[in-house]
Amino acid sequence: MTHEKPAVILLSGGLDSATTAAVARAEGFALYALSIDYGQRHRFELTAAARVAQAIGARQHVTLSIDLARFGGSALTGAIAVPKDRAPAEMDREIPVTYVPARNTVFLSLALAWAEALRAADLFLGVNAVDYSGYPDCRPEYIQAFEALANLATKAGVEHAIEFRIHTPLIHMTKAQIIRLGAELGVDFSLTHSCYDPASTGCPCGRCDACQLRRRGFAEAGLVDPLPRG
Amino acid sequence: MTHEKPAVILLSGGLDSATTAAVARAEGFALYALSIDYGQRHRFELTAAARVAQAIGARQHVTLSIDLARFGGSALTGAIAVPKDRAPAEMDREIPVTYVPARNTVFLSLALAWAEALRAADLFLGVNAVDYSGYPDCRPEYIQAFEALANLATKAGVEHAIEFRIHTPLIHMTKAQIIRLGAELGVDFSLTHSCYDPASTGCPCGRCDACQLRRRGFAEAGLVDPLPRG
Repeated sequence: MTHEKPAVILLSGGLDSATTAAVARAEGFALYALSIDYGQRHRFELTAAARVAQAIGARQHVTLSIDLARFGGSALTGAIAVPKDRAPAEMDREIPVTYVPARNTVFLSLALAWAEALRAADLFLGVNAVDYSGYPDCRPEYIQAFEALANLATKAGVEHAIEFRIHTPLIHMTKAQIIRLGAELGVDFSLTHSCYDPASTGCPCGRCDACQLRRRGFAEAGLVDPLPRG
Repeated sequence: MTHEKPAVILLSGGLDSATTAAVARAEGFALYALSIDYGQRHRFELTAAARVAQAIGARQHVTLSIDLARFGGSALTGAIAVPKDRAPAEMDREIPVTYVPARNTVFLSLALAWAEALRAADLFLGVNAVDYSGYPDCRPEYIQAFEALANLATKAGVEHAIEFRIHTPLIHMTKAQIIRLGAELGVDFSLTHSCYDPASTGCPCGRCDACQLRRRGFAEAGLVDPLPRG
């Protein structure tokens, strides 16, 4: 029996959360990995999440289903088309249609529920404010607000004086920096999945924002993406 | 076609949320009622929620399933027994085992997701800081923190300058005051359900904290509970 501190990590199956898991592991946390099946088009990321959880040695991996598609409002869950072949400037201009309403708030609240039940004070989230500058719920001020909320919201915070901490080690990194960090920590990127609109085989489309960011990130990092190119 | 402002209301099927719905309706909102099947023991409240949604004329009623029981940590979802026959002083002493980790945070985040997709700025929640003084996520400071978070978390808040407001009209009322208000607004309490541990018929046990609070509330309000007594 080990005495590692438990931490809940939101694991999407993408390379950001895989790298975040590797950081948490390197810091000595025992990982409880949480993935959410929220009706996303790109369900392949859930099988990727299971592969990553196993590879990283997670103590437990829970995939919760919650049908956010019933609310509509996003290209990732609804009938809106995923944009393709957008230039970087275009990606930056506004919050993309792939934004899922309040997604990180839903995910963090579920991670908090599990953390409280586990008596864990630490949550890890692979958000990034550089490449996803358009997503409001990837910004540091949002993360700080959630941390404040978590300490008011819970029996753990109020009765047991547990101070929740949301770790976002990648928040100020570029995709290339994340890939370099992941590579240093031994992340097997062949297990991860990034594409918003994969083929039925799971192969990346190569043209959505996520595929483009990934491709440019590997190029800038001077590394080769082990995934097939769309 | 009407031009009422849309509002998302969390509807549990209990008398607090039924009264909150009646307040929202009286204020002229078009109601989008959200109920959560979270693995609670007392699933009868979900059928009660559907009855209340229909009676109140909700524009839409969505019941989302999310298996919080997988996290454990509560008498309402886990194997811990629901406490019975507790004296009022005992109920006040500490946060009860019926507390569900981070429940209101999970519920409000889902309500926020739907509100954003609907372009609604108003959320209604029947929390109460008097009778549920032990629940950290029923306190005004918690609600304020969530409101602040909602405005940072969303595309609606950031791009469209929608200011989310979480209405908690019952937060400072006693159970008797809530029952009187509901009665004035025409709430049919026979449609509601409060018991944490009902019989297989749905009949209230009469002995859990929720049954006791309800009984005392009707007595203090000088009204008769139309539900059968356990």
